[in-house]
Amino acid sequence: MSGSSEITETKLNRALSIPAGVSPQIGEQMFDLISRLYPICRSITGNGVRETLRILQEYIPLAVNEVPTGTPAFDWTVSKEWNVRDAYIKNLKGEKVVDFQKCNLHLLNYSVPFKQKVSLDELKEHLFTLPEHPDWIPYRTSYYKEAWGFCLSHNRLLELADDEYEVAIESSLEPGSLTYGEYFLPGQTDAEEVLISTHICHPSLANDNLSGVAVATFIAKQLSNVSSRYSYRFLFTPGTIGSIVWLSLNESQVSRIKHGLVLACLGDPGNATYKKSRRGNAEIDRAVSQVLRDSGEPHKIVDFSPYGYDERQFCSPGFNLPVGCFMRTPHGEFPEYHTSADNLDFVRPDCLVDSLFTCSNILQVLENNKTYLNLSPKCEPQLGRRGLYSTIGGQSDGRLRELATLWVLNLSDGDHSLLDIADRSGLKFVLVREAAAALREHGLLKNLPEN
Amino acid sequence: MSGSSEITETKLNRALSIPAGVSPQIGEQMFDLISRLYPICRSITGNGVRETLRILQEYIPLAVNEVPTGTPAFDWTVSKEWNVRDAYIKNLKGEKVVDFQKCNLHLLNYSVPFKQKVSLDELKEHLFTLPEHPDWIPYRTSYYKEAWGFCLSHNRLLELADDEYEVAIESSLEPGSLTYGEYFLPGQTDAEEVLISTHICHPSLANDNLSGVAVATFIAKQLSNVSSRYSYRFLFTPGTIGSIVWLSLNESQVSRIKHGLVLACLGDPGNATYKKSRRGNAEIDRAVSQVLRDSGEPHKIVDFSPYGYDERQFCSPGFNLPVGCFMRTPHGEFPEYHTSADNLDFVRPDCLVDSLFTCSNILQVLENNKTYLNLSPKCEPQLGRRGLYSTIGGQSDGRLRELATLWVLNLSDGDHSLLDIADRSGLKFVLVREAAAALREHGLLKNLPEN
Amino acid sequence: MSGSSEITETKLNRALSIPAGVSPQIGEQMFDLISRLYPICRSITGNGVRETLRILQEYIPLAVNEVPTGTPAFDWTVSKEWNVRDAYIKNLKGEKVVDFQKCNLHLLNYSVPFKQKVSLDELKEHLFTLPEHPDWIPYRTSYYKEAWGFCLSHNRLLELADDEYEVAIESSLEPGSLTYGEYFLPGQTDAEEVLISTHICHPSLANDNLSGVAVATFIAKQLSNVSSRYSYRFLFTPGTIGSIVWLSLNESQVSRIKHGLVLACLGDPGNATYKKSRRGNAEIDRAVSQVLRDSGEPHKIVDFSPYGYDERQFCSPGFNLPVGCFMRTPHGEFPEYHTSADNLDFVRPDCLVDSLFTCSNILQVLENNKTYLNLSPKCEPQLGRRGLYSTIGGQSDGRLRELATLWVLNLSDGDHSLLDIADRSGLKFVLVREAAAALREHGLLKNLPEN
Repeated sequence: MSGSSEITETKLNRALSIPAGVSPQIGEQMFDLISRLYPICRSITGNGVRETLRILQEYIPLAVNEVPTGTPAFDWTVSKEWNVRDAYIKNLKGEKVVDFQKCNLHLLNYSVPFKQKVSLDELKEHLFTLPEHPDWIPYRTSYYKEAWGFCLSHNRLLELADDEYEVAIESSLEPGSLTYGEYFLPGQTDAEEVLISTHICHPSLANDNLSGVAVATFIAKQLSNVSSRYSYRFLFTPGTIGSIVWLSLNESQVSRIKHGLVLACLGDPGNATYKKSRRGNAEIDRAVSQVLRDSGEPHKIVDFSPYGYDERQFCSPGFNLPVGCFMRTPHGEFPEYHTSADNLDFVRPDCLVDSLFTCSNILQVLENNKTYLNLSPKCEPQLGRRGLYSTIGGQSDGRLRELATLWVLNLSDGDHSLLDIADRSGLKFVLVREAAAALREHGLLKNLPEN
Repeated sequence: MSGSSEITETKLNRALSIPAGVSPQIGEQMFDLISRLYPICRSITGNGVRETLRILQEYIPLAVNEVPTGTPAFDWTVSKEWNVRDAYIKNLKGEKVVDFQKCNLHLLNYSVPFKQKVSLDELKEHLFTLPEHPDWIPYRTSYYKEAWGFCLSHNRLLELADDEYEVAIESSLEPGSLTYGEYFLPGQTDAEEVLISTHICHPSLANDNLSGVAVATFIAKQLSNVSSRYSYRFLFTPGTIGSIVWLSLNESQVSRIKHGLVLACLGDPGNATYKKSRRGNAEIDRAVSQVLRDSGEPHKIVDFSPYGYDERQFCSPGFNLPVGCFMRTPHGEFPEYHTSADNLDFVRPDCLVDSLFTCSNILQVLENNKTYLNLSPKCEPQLGRRGLYSTIGGQSDGRLRELATLWVLNLSDGDHSLLDIADRSGLKFVLVREAAAALREHGLLKNLPEN
Repeated sequence: MSGSSEITETKLNRALSIPAGVSPQIGEQMFDLISRLYPICRSITGNGVRETLRILQEYIPLAVNEVPTGTPAFDWTVSKEWNVRDAYIKNLKGEKVVDFQKCNLHLLNYSVPFKQKVSLDELKEHLFTLPEHPDWIPYRTSYYKEAWGFCLSHNRLLELADDEYEVAIESSLEPGSLTYGEYFLPGQTDAEEVLISTHICHPSLANDNLSGVAVATFIAKQLSNVSSRYSYRFLFTPGTIGSIVWLSLNESQVSRIKHGLVLACLGDPGNATYKKSRRGNAEIDRAVSQVLRDSGEPHKIVDFSPYGYDERQFCSPGFNLPVGCFMRTPHGEFPEYHTSADNLDFVRPDCLVDSLFTCSNILQVLENNKTYLNLSPKCEPQLGRRGLYSTIGGQSDGRLRELATLWVLNLSDGDHSLLDIADRSGLKFVLVREAAAALREHGLLKNLPEN
């Protein structure tokens, strides 16, 4: 690392680290963003996504891309665009017993237009409830099969009289486009990117995934002020079809992605969870494991599986990118998942800050993980005369800073990165990184050229 | 897999699977076979083996081979043939205190002819008992050192007066031959065989190894009605010398053996045990592990050791064949082992059926374990429009069939067999296999040519 | 192994093994040596080291080497030589409140000459105590920064009146030399050495490391009477600088070191501890693990770390020699470590014998660990007719000697050493070695040429 990148590193660290006093403030800022985005009716296409991206542009200079309906993307095709003006179910008295205006989850996402009187029995074939949580409204979609339906609380369903109902869905499903946001921050070299991807297609669900959107936005905002080793690419895309479209449009450049994280469900009070990339031992996998270990907090590292968020696409066998997924409680493992209970009460500013802080630490490991060469490899160099070692011997065993110094020297044979050294020594990455920096200053280590 | 092999697979599955209603019947049939074979005095050579093989020929068209005494087989030579007409010990009153006619275990197997009056003290040097199980008769042999002796219950020994005894062993040990049975079922290609081997040298011992003989016979019987991917070779040989002779006679062809199982001790009520091949990670080892895991039943997988049954020979370093040993309770780990207590009361029809069923499942895994190539490897293909995925999204997490479909797509990169996919995903093999079949039907997977 | 090496092996085994009756005697002899060496004031240079080596020469024909002050050794330079005539602190009454003559630990090791009256406050800046063990004198050094100081019990410090004190350190720090001892025992080939290294720089500390010195001396004494496969090189050097100097002077020949052990802290009653070499899976690492496992005694195997004794230098990345460290309780893990409590009461003859015995067993494994080739690799050879297998079959399962014989035959395919076989079989090395010897005698194994 040259002198200038040293400065960069320091700047980056300063930018990314969240001093104790500042935390609540950033947490509130992220929470405010989530609160603004929460009421919008989003889907995989449509004006809700556009409005969402417009708001994000107040924070970061996001490019907004429109991909026309019918555009092929590998095995897929961009859907018709879906928009909703209104939707409701009225009883015979003209009362709206289910009202899209009150909660956009009420409408089966991607419902086709429909206006008709139907009996309760016929209506029931189009209703979705959660009997095990009778007060919650479920979230359901039908993107790829034309259908109409409503989601409501089970208690509301039980109240419905055996009568006729007026169903109105004033939606449009027409040629238009798929909209996604992209923000590219160039680093010292354009050829090596870190990808941060998050899905923006869910309507009024706070943790899944406005929390991911907020954390990604604030990482981008902070990184935009510093220069960095890697370039950073932020994607705000509708789930599945969005990442497929992006990969299809950018197929020739994905080899630049050296590390990647999909961000989702980052505001709930559960512990951190990291789902490894398909490769299983990619640098991103090892970096996140190290950061979570160093945190001293309970956490869970799970193996890749092809079910989840957009890592499914990034890790498909034709791409096999080193992209993992960072979450708190994983999708499907909290009862509020995909229901109206995943609301603003479910996400917490302090949890958002903790997620942001962990992401920052992960990026710091990636930025600083290099492989050095010990320039004095035969026996230990004399550290004492360089002030790198206590001069009164026999005093105590195992001071951590000296231990880190010895480990870096011992393993800097060209085959071990700082992450390897932290892993094998059991020491925190930051300690190893600082020891390496001190040894470089004393001319005892040299940077190996990047491969 | 071509269309025709598809049909084969279905047939095989039908042939091998044991529907619940049929199980007791097959269990009783195997038990009946064991009951017929039980009284016969078998050894590593002689008429007992011939009679045994003749009975098996009522079930399967077994070829019976005779290898003359003196035939060299690697470091060994085929022994003289041993046969017994009668053997007993009479007391002074002329009463038979030990009588071969009552139980063939009474005679030390391979005892030389002997007729003489001896004192109790002298006699005792030729008697074998089990003081820790005073009612049981032990089973002992002296194949390779000429000797005579009797086995009896310890209680019987204690009753013997300090007197003279008339010992008579009317046996013959003369040039003849070693007899073994072999049944070859050709598959789609002769060049790839599955070996099923079981030892037939033990006299009146039911679990060790008439249970193995019965299970092997019924597997062969069922397979004989179907065509299969692999050829199957069944060996019914005397232990050790039999497999050594077979290997010696067939040395040039053993490379055809792709997978193999030695079957023994399959009728007792203990849990399934699989002893891995010397290779430790052969496909047979992984297939059996998968089947036992999928069974959900308690079981034990143990590493190879060079002590046991004929896997000792198949796994000798000069052959190192991928042959493991499938048992219930392993030899030496049940107290009845090699005693008169290993009788017809010790083996159970339901345990025999369970063993047969497990073997069938193992063969199904081998028959169906192939490596496919995802033809749509960039991002997931759109499963919904092919009816391979639920069209109402957000409904539930982790339906197993869809998960298996995603796993097969994700790992079918040419490097992972279906067994690899089942292993990594933690899903049952049958689920993975069915997902692959559905994907093939939809043109999303192609069969890789066999290597 | 040829016939002559067979004899050698037997001799070596006899020489190294410690029959029960002899143990106490050798333990007392080692303890006597420690008692003689204990009072001497040693350091990394000086007459104390010379006197120590002179005493060792009564046991073994040690070569004593002098390396002049100023000699460069990689990143280091040989220090000035340090000697002490006297040192004390007197109170105003002329009483010696701290007296080097009573205990050489009182003087900060490598203190520069000093003679002056100082106030208690000023004096305190040069005093070292152990408040948590108020009766013990700590051991401190300042080899590489010129300083003066005294070590004393905390209780003594508390007794010192707030007064003036006369400090006298009659030491010399002048050009001279660093002294170390070396003893080379040639084996059947000079090209393959086992290194035994131990540090001799500590003054009156019994376990750290007169115990190591005594055990190394007695191993050398015993080996000197026998011929052996490997050459043995014993180093008695001051810690750190001594091994660095030796490596610097012998750099071109270190590739001869095939296995090495650093010996330290071998007289305390704790369990055996082995710290692996940097390689982690070197033959020495596997040999020691095997011996400790075979001992049946509690013990600990720890991974390499670059903090400890001279393995730090032997395992520096520029050398990366297969050298581990054998200890009982590791440095820093017993409270007496580097204090006056590490005295003659802390080391025990029986523990010294146990350490010597373990070292002997380790060397026996190294001497005897060879790779053989089964000359009858196709099926098992007929062991019974060679007397290597019980002739009455069915008698019992798993006799260890026969099992070892089968394992050696099964794995002697040219890829497995006896250590590999002991490891995989779970059998004791001695059993495997004896089985291999018997098989060689019967012409069933041949020695593979050394690579």
